[in-house]
Amino acid sequence: GFAKLDHHRSLRSGMPEVVFAAGKTPEQVAAIFVKLAASGVSVLATRASQEHFTAVQETVPTAQHHELARCITLAQNAPPVQGRVTVICAGTSDLPVAEEAAVTAEIFGAEVTRITDVGVAGLQRLLAQLDKLRVADVIVCCAGMEGALPSVVGGLVEAPVIAVPTSVGYGAAFEGVAALLGMLNACSPNITVVNIDNGFGAGYVATLIARGPRSSR
Amino acid sequence: GFAKLDHHRSLRSGMPEVVFAAGKTPEQVAAIFVKLAASGVSVLATRASQEHFTAVQETVPTAQHHELARCITLAQNAPPVQGRVTVICAGTSDLPVAEEAAVTAEIFGAEVTRITDVGVAGLQRLLAQLDKLRVADVIVCCAGMEGALPSVVGGLVEAPVIAVPTSVGYGAAFEGVAALLGMLNACSPNITVVNIDNGFGAGYVATLIARGPRSSR
Amino acid sequence: GFAKLDHHRSLRSGMPEVVFAAGKTPEQVAAIFVKLAASGVSVLATRASQEHFTAVQETVPTAQHHELARCITLAQNAPPVQGRVTVICAGTSDLPVAEEAAVTAEIFGAEVTRITDVGVAGLQRLLAQLDKLRVADVIVCCAGMEGALPSVVGGLVEAPVIAVPTSVGYGAAFEGVAALLGMLNACSPNITVVNIDNGFGAGYVATLIARGPRSSR
Amino acid sequence: GFAKLDHHRSLRSGMPEVVFAAGKTPEQVAAIFVKLAASGVSVLATRASQEHFTAVQETVPTAQHHELARCITLAQNAPPVQGRVTVICAGTSDLPVAEEAAVTAEIFGAEVTRITDVGVAGLQRLLAQLDKLRVADVIVCCAGMEGALPSVVGGLVEAPVIAVPTSVGYGAAFEGVAALLGMLNACSPNITVVNIDNGFGAGYVATLIARGPRSSR
Amino acid sequence: GFAKLDHHRSLRSGMPEVVFAAGKTPEQVAAIFVKLAASGVSVLATRASQEHFTAVQETVPTAQHHELARCITLAQNAPPVQGRVTVICAGTSDLPVAEEAAVTAEIFGAEVTRITDVGVAGLQRLLAQLDKLRVADVIVCCAGMEGALPSVVGGLVEAPVIAVPTSVGYGAAFEGVAALLGMLNACSPNITVVNIDNGFGAGYVATLIARGPRSSR
Amino acid sequence: GFAKLDHHRSLRSGMPEVVFAAGKTPEQVAAIFVKLAASGVSVLATRASQEHFTAVQETVPTAQHHELARCITLAQNAPPVQGRVTVICAGTSDLPVAEEAAVTAEIFGAEVTRITDVGVAGLQRLLAQLDKLRVADVIVCCAGMEGALPSVVGGLVEAPVIAVPTSVGYGAAFEGVAALLGMLNACSPNITVVNIDNGFGAGYVATLIARGPRSSR
Amino acid sequence: GFAKLDHHRSLRSGMPEVVFAAGKTPEQVAAIFVKLAASGVSVLATRASQEHFTAVQETVPTAQHHELARCITLAQNAPPVQGRVTVICAGTSDLPVAEEAAVTAEIFGAEVTRITDVGVAGLQRLLAQLDKLRVADVIVCCAGMEGALPSVVGGLVEAPVIAVPTSVGYGAAFEGVAALLGMLNACSPNITVVNIDNGFGAGYVATLIARGPRSSR
Amino acid sequence: GFAKLDHHRSLRSGMPEVVFAAGKTPEQVAAIFVKLAASGVSVLATRASQEHFTAVQETVPTAQHHELARCITLAQNAPPVQGRVTVICAGTSDLPVAEEAAVTAEIFGAEVTRITDVGVAGLQRLLAQLDKLRVADVIVCCAGMEGALPSVVGGLVEAPVIAVPTSVGYGAAFEGVAALLGMLNACSPNITVVNIDNGFGAGYVATLIARGPRSSR
Ligand SMILES: Nc1ncnc2c1ncn2[C@@H]1O[C@H](COP(=O)(O)O)[C@@H](O)[C@H]1O
Ligand SMILES: Nc1ncnc2c1ncn2[C@@H]1O[C@H](COP(=O)(O)O)[C@@H](O)[C@H]1O
Ligand SMILES: Nc1ncnc2c1ncn2[C@@H]1O[C@H](COP(=O)(O)O)[C@@H](O)[C@H]1O
Ligand SMILES: Nc1ncnc2c1ncn2[C@@H]1O[C@H](COP(=O)(O)O)[C@@H](O)[C@H]1O
Ligand SMILES: [Mg+2]
Ligand SMILES: [Mg+2]
Ligand SMILES: [Mg+2]
Ligand SMILES: [Mg+2]
Ligand SMILES: [Mg+2]
Ligand SMILES: [Mg+2]
Ligand SMILES: [Mg+2]
Ligand SMILES: [Mg+2]
Repeated sequence: GFAKLDHHRSLRSGMPEVVFAAGKTPEQVAAIFVKLAASGVSVLATRASQEHFTAVQETVPTAQHHELARCITLAQNAPPVQGRVTVICAGTSDLPVAEEAAVTAEIFGAEVTRITDVGVAGLQRLLAQLDKLRVADVIVCCAGMEGALPSVVGGLVEAPVIAVPTSVGYGAAFEGVAALLGMLNACSPNITVVNIDNGFGAGYVATLIARGPRSSR
Repeated sequence: GFAKLDHHRSLRSGMPEVVFAAGKTPEQVAAIFVKLAASGVSVLATRASQEHFTAVQETVPTAQHHELARCITLAQNAPPVQGRVTVICAGTSDLPVAEEAAVTAEIFGAEVTRITDVGVAGLQRLLAQLDKLRVADVIVCCAGMEGALPSVVGGLVEAPVIAVPTSVGYGAAFEGVAALLGMLNACSPNITVVNIDNGFGAGYVATLIARGPRSSR
Repeated sequence: GFAKLDHHRSLRSGMPEVVFAAGKTPEQVAAIFVKLAASGVSVLATRASQEHFTAVQETVPTAQHHELARCITLAQNAPPVQGRVTVICAGTSDLPVAEEAAVTAEIFGAEVTRITDVGVAGLQRLLAQLDKLRVADVIVCCAGMEGALPSVVGGLVEAPVIAVPTSVGYGAAFEGVAALLGMLNACSPNITVVNIDNGFGAGYVATLIARGPRSSR
Repeated sequence: GFAKLDHHRSLRSGMPEVVFAAGKTPEQVAAIFVKLAASGVSVLATRASQEHFTAVQETVPTAQHHELARCITLAQNAPPVQGRVTVICAGTSDLPVAEEAAVTAEIFGAEVTRITDVGVAGLQRLLAQLDKLRVADVIVCCAGMEGALPSVVGGLVEAPVIAVPTSVGYGAAFEGVAALLGMLNACSPNITVVNIDNGFGAGYVATLIARGPRSSR
Repeated sequence: GFAKLDHHRSLRSGMPEVVFAAGKTPEQVAAIFVKLAASGVSVLATRASQEHFTAVQETVPTAQHHELARCITLAQNAPPVQGRVTVICAGTSDLPVAEEAAVTAEIFGAEVTRITDVGVAGLQRLLAQLDKLRVADVIVCCAGMEGALPSVVGGLVEAPVIAVPTSVGYGAAFEGVAALLGMLNACSPNITVVNIDNGFGAGYVATLIARGPRSSR
Repeated sequence: GFAKLDHHRSLRSGMPEVVFAAGKTPEQVAAIFVKLAASGVSVLATRASQEHFTAVQETVPTAQHHELARCITLAQNAPPVQGRVTVICAGTSDLPVAEEAAVTAEIFGAEVTRITDVGVAGLQRLLAQLDKLRVADVIVCCAGMEGALPSVVGGLVEAPVIAVPTSVGYGAAFEGVAALLGMLNACSPNITVVNIDNGFGAGYVATLIARGPRSSR
Repeated sequence: GFAKLDHHRSLRSGMPEVVFAAGKTPEQVAAIFVKLAASGVSVLATRASQEHFTAVQETVPTAQHHELARCITLAQNAPPVQGRVTVICAGTSDLPVAEEAAVTAEIFGAEVTRITDVGVAGLQRLLAQLDKLRVADVIVCCAGMEGALPSVVGGLVEAPVIAVPTSVGYGAAFEGVAALLGMLNACSPNITVVNIDNGFGAGYVATLIARGPRSSR
Repeated sequence: GFAKLDHHRSLRSGMPEVVFAAGKTPEQVAAIFVKLAASGVSVLATRASQEHFTAVQETVPTAQHHELARCITLAQNAPPVQGRVTVICAGTSDLPVAEEAAVTAEIFGAEVTRITDVGVAGLQRLLAQLDKLRVADVIVCCAGMEGALPSVVGGLVEAPVIAVPTSVGYGAAFEGVAALLGMLNACSPNITVVNIDNGFGAGYVATLIARGPRSSR
């Protein structure tokens, strides 16, 4: 079993490494970051604060800070860009999650298009973006409150839609639960869902899908 | 205080009387129905089964059965039709609730337009009904599963929208809870919500709104 | 579809514009506020702090601060006052939500009457306000804890009642959930509900209803 | 410790014995019933079906069936009637729970007054019963749906109110949860609560309270 | 109706007045406190901080601070002490709630006995207090975590037990929900329940019960 | 907007049509099925009972019944098989959901491999299937109870994993909620989730992914 | 890895095999049962109905039916009895779960003592069983409703206590959730918990513990 | 009853005493700690902050601080080491809970082995630790997020596994609820569960099990 398992590792070789910064000290994140960087692949830190970035930058000066996305990246020996991911969100409060998805998809090698500020209550603005939506290989769709955007978007495109509920809202939004339930019950069949605020997971799966199936490579 | 209270009663005089048939025997419903009918106003029984209707019909032969709506009505001395209510729903499973709303609004004196089978995942069909939506004084919008229809409809019209979550769906629909939460968090500001499957309440309030404000009568 | 959609926009022309200040910086709110003000309509900012107001005031000196309501308003070219909205709440802790509803209804053109400190456990005080309740075209009723006020008020008036659960209470109040459930199950049929603490939504729909149905204008 | 414990037993001597029939076969209930009856005290079976009664009646022919209350009683060597309990409920669907409370309170020795069909949405009917409410030593108040009745009743009387949420309602009533939460958050301070549909518990505690404090006997 | 209602007020005359300090400024609490004090009855402020007390003391120098109970009291023209209330709790973390109940019961005229640090996992200590428990007219029993104390205490005494779930605990204690559910399902029938952390409500009802039924006065 | 929307329709032309049989009468399902079949594409009915099949078979004799999957299919003018989907589940109780996914993926044109009876508590059996797992373009992973299988499988493969929580289990499985939460929190980043028991949705998205990105076609 | 995994299998050799009958047809259970029996070890079927037993008995005539426990057993080549397990429960409704635990522990080789009908509201009966409790190596404690029994029992013994919440109760018992939460928050530190109604799991772990640690064998 | 109860106390004589520091002031914890230390047994303080330690150290200079575990210990007159406990956790965020379990097990007399950083998504690392897992008498397994580790570990060993859900994760992890439900539904039968983050309880029960059954001592 072990040989097989090891073989698996190599399947992913060349892929970026990821560190989840939340709950880690700036020093811990910097130490992990520099170690991963040394292995020659790109590095992504998510849920990183300004303090995390300051510490990382000291040891890896070429690291980049994506403030809105709360991410730190170091791009090196990147694989060729492959596949088109469109990240869409409804309100400005959803932007940190949408940006986490976009930054993740970019560092993992996808061409990313961003569409923002297109809620279901203003269909014109959404329909005005139909072309951008329809050329995507996969769509990441972030929404809080009632989380209805994926249902509508899913009906407008043929591609798979990865829905990301966000913790945006108040009262009966229940920190993203209303949006999560809405997305799990979406009536368009091309929708799958990730955890509340999990922009990283959505961006990661999107690149897997956009890269194309193994059997056709 | 009591005189005032009695005065209030007369405000509503001429209005239909309602009986909630669920949990009552056919005999009980028939007895209440005939008594209310004797007072000269219209009568509505909701959540009524075939058995309920059979019993009512024996004593009030002119009563009508609305099977899909699970309602029994007797229209008499009806007030003049006043105001336009549009009842819209997404799927065929939402029809019993939508019909309960429509039958209620009709017996309470509104002109009712029905729009069915227009989900958010197929925007063309919804947009094809824009004219019918925009002439309404108030819209009753029934949806199960993710309950996204009111958000979209609310963005297309100026009128108030009464959202009715239905218990349609499975799994994480949680018997209407997902739809209820979605509607409470709807991003269009012209939306208010009633209890899960409460077509009656929605139809009733819709007629109040469509009849127009007291101060302008 | 687009022409129709654009036409819709004009239906609302002249109406105030709204900005939701929570989660935005003072600079962002001020920038949006001044831009909306420039379009010539009234402007309302909700969930605004003292810091938000200070920033807005610098660029729009005539803006007004409603501290208790957490709102900022600029009234200009207002439509004629139309319709009577009564805003009622039970305790002093519900006042911020009730005031948000009242300020919203006023800027959107309704004549607003306020009734405060009338809980269901002291019926005399509530019954002493019957006249004020009964002249209203629509009532906004805010309550936390058990949220019983709308049920009682709904039984005393003919007009539609918009119930706003507030997050007031502790323990099994569950941040407004107890009040929300109470209101959704209210036994008076003239009640609809909005999200917990959503004074804005309630005030907005109240003006729609008080303005009267489109078909009778 | 044991002597003390035994002493305690005798404190209650002469009191009725109770059997909870739900989930027991008719034969089991009949066997327990006849054994308890043999000890000379009154016997109460709750949650009893017609089948349970038929079986009990065969061995204890003088047992009485309270169909609506789903109770079977045998009254013997009853203590003198002591204290006034008023049992009040809002709708006909709450009657089985209210009757369970009333039958329990009667067999445990209280004088019971029943008030039915007085919901909070029709205050006149409730206020018409004020005298009956105010002579009570303790009130048992049963309500489903939003469970607002205890809050209102609690504000009208000085006596303790035992609130019983019932599982009556649909949708967001959640089988009595909405009523339970409403009652736990009741704004009148003279209210305590028992489990959903627990008419027995409410009736039992009511007799304890109505009998009067031990220290004053 | 109003005359009757006013009459009711006098029923309670002489009783202490209560102010809920949480969410009010020190100045507001002091202002209310001094006004109530002027009416000649005792005054109780609950959920009061040190700051609240400092403000109250300035205008009502004889007011007393009960730090652990988070209460401020002013006793004047108190009714004669009547009835025995025993307040019991399991752990030191439950003390603030238990003390709130005890201080409330004292100001409302009961003789209060306190039992602390007697959890169900150490039965000896509980059984050692049996005498104190059994002379009580009513018991207030506060417990967090699994909330099992009322079930055990209820089985040891004849008197009514008012169970107060506390928000003590972590993880699956869910801020008092586990204790609340445990108490609502308590297998001793002499138990009723109040809201999580509602020591005031429990203490208040306890005095009502201990004072004895109206009909026997 | 409409032209664009119509164009979209043609994107999907040639794809199977689907009918959700639950809640529809056999006659309704048969009528819809025959109409869809007439359009020349393949047809899939999900959640179909034996009665549904009997009715369908009468009008479409070549329709096939997949009893375990609760599906009815008619394959005609099928697109060429494209992409490899592996459907895996842990226990026999998960089979109906897994089969629904497999039948869906097949009718939509994927080559499907099934792996059954490989729970996380018996790793050998799972590891023995590594080759089958690693050649898949996408994996559909169905599990009830604690829903841990996707986490483990996701760590063994590079491909996207679509996790389907099933309602299998009892007690704290809460009809699939435990599995749903487990999957949403899966620590492998290549996992997305669909609604409880939604084998259809998972199978559908799997074919979209396995077919490959639009941009590379 | 595989060799190690295989070695593990042999560690358990000689142990009974188990089949979970719920959701399987009588024929399926009988087929599995006879196959497992053929391997020479004891066999246990849980959640088995009378129909399951009838089918099993036809092929394995020496199989035994434990009706109350809903179990079928075949004992053969049993390991020597080792360790003392005491199974305790509060009410008769908890018996099926308690018996499932007891039958499981017996077939897995423990000496089992049963204590029934000892609730926390009647401490005498519980304390009368102290000797039986204290000789146990491990205790399985089943309770529904408030689930307080393990807390009390855990305080009386030194041994580990496995708490089994049962779905017994109504209303706020929420099908075992109240008991589950109570047990997870039990204040005795010697308590661990299994799923609601999981008598089998409790009985199985109890035998592991009673058999004694591997290192001392 | 009391003699028996006292006898019980002595059963545990020599065992460490424990103080739960959370919610206690440094002075309170120090006072309790020194008093317990004076009795001659080992002392453990859990949920202790740096401030708690500083205060304890002043009076008990030989006390030790376990920062990661948030524990303070004083080992004296310790019983001979007996039994092997392995504590395993998945991520670094689970370490505080795992260390609380490990420190508890050590002070209570077990030989403790630690395995960290072995999640279910990287089976190789877990399988590389199989020998350490299989020599354990009992395993404490801590995991947050989806809580799948106990299911996998439980399938690899014969010993009892005590699962500790941690509050690690975000969104639908719901502060440990997802992990708790996962563990309660674990498909390996050798698993029992303690409260979220309750490392102490798990470590304590683990020593009881590892010490071996009373009957074989
Ligand atoms: N924002 C995120 N949400 C969920 N998982 C993440 C996130 N960022 C990183 N991860 C996962 O966390 C792993 C790294 O965790 P750690 O070793 O704790 O830094 C990565 O391999 C990712 O799979
Ligand atoms: N479907 C319904 N849902 C909620 N409330 C209803 C419904 N139908 C009737 N009602 C209300 O129930 C009252 C009649 O109840 P009842 O006296 O029990 O027949 C009416 O006055 C309505 O307000
Ligand atoms: N309807 C009820 N709800 C809750 N508890 C009850 C009810 N009826 C009886 N009981 C309690 O159940 C006990 C009898 O239970 P059992 O021994 O199972 O018949 C009585 O002593 C009561 O305390
Ligand atoms: N981390 C912990 N989680 C749960 N219970 C604990 C914990 N630490 C100590 N305990 C329990 O709390 C008791 C001491 O509580 P206290 O008397 O409040 O200090 C001990 O006997 C333990 O049973
Ligand atoms: Mg789907
Ligand atoms: Mg709204
Ligand atoms: Mg209503
Ligand atoms: Mg109260
Ligand atoms: Mg009770
Ligand atoms: Mg993921
Ligand atoms: Mg424990
Ligand atoms: Mg288990």
